[in-house]
Amino acid sequence: MVNIALLGLGTVGSGVVKVLQQNKDNINNKIGTEISLKKVLVKNRDKKRDINLKDSMMTTNPDEILNDDEIDLIVELIGGEQPAYDYIKRAIQSKKSVVTANKLVIARYGPEIHRLADKNRVEISYEGSVAGGLPIIRPLKESLAANRIKEIYGILNGTTNYILTKMTQNQEEFSDVLTQAQKLGYAERDPSSDINGLDAAYKISILASIAFESFIDVESIFVEGIQDIEQVDIELAGELGYVIKLLAIAKEDGDKLDVRVHPAFISKDHPLALVNDIYNAVYLQGDAVGDVMSYGQGAGQMPTASAVVADIIQVARCICEHRPGATLIDSGARADLKKIKDVKNSFYLRIRVNDKPGVMAKVTRVLGDHQVSLASVLQKHRRSAVVPLVLITHPVREEFLMRSISELEKIEDVIEINSVIRVQEEKNPGQNKSTKTEKGE
Amino acid sequence: MVNIALLGLGTVGSGVVKVLQQNKDNINNKIGTEISLKKVLVKNRDKKRDINLKDSMMTTNPDEILNDDEIDLIVELIGGEQPAYDYIKRAIQSKKSVVTANKLVIARYGPEIHRLADKNRVEISYEGSVAGGLPIIRPLKESLAANRIKEIYGILNGTTNYILTKMTQNQEEFSDVLTQAQKLGYAERDPSSDINGLDAAYKISILASIAFESFIDVESIFVEGIQDIEQVDIELAGELGYVIKLLAIAKEDGDKLDVRVHPAFISKDHPLALVNDIYNAVYLQGDAVGDVMSYGQGAGQMPTASAVVADIIQVARCICEHRPGATLIDSGARADLKKIKDVKNSFYLRIRVNDKPGVMAKVTRVLGDHQVSLASVLQKHRRSAVVPLVLITHPVREEFLMRSISELEKIEDVIEINSVIRVQEEKNPGQNKSTKTEKGE
Repeated sequence: MVNIALLGLGTVGSGVVKVLQQNKDNINNKIGTEISLKKVLVKNRDKKRDINLKDSMMTTNPDEILNDDEIDLIVELIGGEQPAYDYIKRAIQSKKSVVTANKLVIARYGPEIHRLADKNRVEISYEGSVAGGLPIIRPLKESLAANRIKEIYGILNGTTNYILTKMTQNQEEFSDVLTQAQKLGYAERDPSSDINGLDAAYKISILASIAFESFIDVESIFVEGIQDIEQVDIELAGELGYVIKLLAIAKEDGDKLDVRVHPAFISKDHPLALVNDIYNAVYLQGDAVGDVMSYGQGAGQMPTASAVVADIIQVARCICEHRPGATLIDSGARADLKKIKDVKNSFYLRIRVNDKPGVMAKVTRVLGDHQVSLASVLQKHRRSAVVPLVLITHPVREEFLMRSISELEKIEDVIEINSVIRVQEEKNPGQNKSTKTEKGE
Repeated sequence: MVNIALLGLGTVGSGVVKVLQQNKDNINNKIGTEISLKKVLVKNRDKKRDINLKDSMMTTNPDEILNDDEIDLIVELIGGEQPAYDYIKRAIQSKKSVVTANKLVIARYGPEIHRLADKNRVEISYEGSVAGGLPIIRPLKESLAANRIKEIYGILNGTTNYILTKMTQNQEEFSDVLTQAQKLGYAERDPSSDINGLDAAYKISILASIAFESFIDVESIFVEGIQDIEQVDIELAGELGYVIKLLAIAKEDGDKLDVRVHPAFISKDHPLALVNDIYNAVYLQGDAVGDVMSYGQGAGQMPTASAVVADIIQVARCICEHRPGATLIDSGARADLKKIKDVKNSFYLRIRVNDKPGVMAKVTRVLGDHQVSLASVLQKHRRSAVVPLVLITHPVREEFLMRSISELEKIEDVIEINSVIRVQEEKNPGQNKSTKTEKGE
């Protein structure tokens, strides 16, 4: 018998109780012993809930759980930094294993918590902290353990992916779609940390820490949100063969790591292009495995509960076999992140210019002076005096691109630089394999 | 130190040696001890190889490995039924753990081998036996352990997926693409077990055995290959908004399992539609997680080696911690498979008819008499006396459809039934979610 306790009984907490009850026999079978839910920490005992839990199980006093020697495993689902961070540390210090879905605590304090867990010979697991039910943390640590990971591309925020999908499908503007998403419950009342990319930054920092075995400070990740994406950019992307997604990227670049979150053009043929609505996906490249992708619902009650209960099962197996599990190897290293100004990308530029002879020549000369060369040019609506000019550049260091933009703004016939969006020029998988594949099925 | 030995040094075996050498420090770090490759069973010691192995390490005598008490872990990469099956059993009986990529042995003898491993308290792992590098067996057993699995849809054979992709992209016929695929090394000289669906049947039987915890006899799986797919069917599928893929399907259907392999129409919006070339994917539905997909290279030297070495790492962790790992729970149950005649599907029918008034009425009456109703009709090329009639039916039991086809063949103005292909009418994910998703990120 493994005794567990929940801290927090909100959306995900209730989902965890449901899954544990619904698939009880199946789960106990898999562990080889019974999981017994002993206590649940709640804010308010009297709140009406849609789950079936005995009153005596609920407590508002964390000490009743953290000081109970019979509890082997704590499941932290309060979220946010405090008091979750303190509870997790206290649990570990009391030799209890911990399962959590708290991206903030893991992204900020992962190495410290791992060291503490190793010292106390208990487990810490957090599959639910990144991309809900989509299996990625355990596969990274186990199924892909033979690989040196080279790059990770994630669609890690369901709210922004929902908004971009609806903008694409329904030809609507950002603010209108956001309002609908809030009504449907796909966006929070205060959606800022989703929209501005911060939520995705926490998640990519956790994935990159595992993949590259070094701590990634979220504060040093370049983050740009989707609030400035206009309908016209999405339409133009479509015409050029792309879709716009909020990408979370982490890749090796020489002796640095290039980690960033920003909207990006990706080819319609890329498997990430069909990741729509609230779905998430992680696409990565390993030196042996080549490219693999994991796709699923990145949030929501039951998908996240699925990940949390999978962690509970794995940790419970360790507990009943009295053995340490496979926690992250904490190398103690702190990643040196590449500055965004040094990153090379192709760019999509949308510029309003006066429709006069010679303007195009002026624009391309300024770009050329800053080592920016053009991959394609689209000029539309030639019936007015002011026309949009759409350019896609070859890969160029961001620093040079930004300098060229400052210069472009000085040209008299350039009215406005409307959009600057990075283009993810990753090869289309299956067309650019590194090695010719030999049959080995 | 964990001592391992390889049986077989073909394509995948050489890949395993390469990965072990190339990522040695990284791998030893992850296990917490050193993996030492002690012996390799080869057919021919003098064969020229592109890997760096001491001569003294190679042997042609299996007893030198199977009787060596210092060897903890055997990696079987010979393939085929015999002698691989015997070697695996002998290894386990000598208290050695086993890692294998042998789909045939696992599909046929999985339950027996699991029982033997449990009895001898050793591990058996076989991630490489299904879909190469794509992580699916361990995720099914661990990351999705909280779920009751409802359905699995797999693109599990790289050769047939390559052929269907090229038929779609280049408007070529099956036999021409097959010849090219053989030249490029994407198809074997004798490609029959890929083309006829048997290879995919072995793989879906392994996945379904794990997901549904009962033994699936490969012989009782309905299997249809891609050899009869014509270019015109692929073009018509495209016009109707579909692509044709060879699908391996396993799903619960009442108290039976519906397991089958056959070409199927799938919607262009479905994530499986972008799984092209030699790539594989497994798309599944769990009761908590909803739909998830794993995508990657399903074959080839390095992807398969990635899966095999991941298994080696996990098993070596168990060995050096002196504990049993998480082998499959063998319930001893044998699955009761649904007969194909009782399965309900939509169907695509391509029929050549005389272009006369009343023919369409005759055809629809015969279909209606057998409870086959039509979802769409496409009639083309009206300039000749004989015209193709393309029908897509609503879901109907295969038995009724087949009876209606026998009747159709008797109609005088029906020249020929050219194609009958099942349509996978799965809802498009993200549009038909079972529950409204609440925010839980």
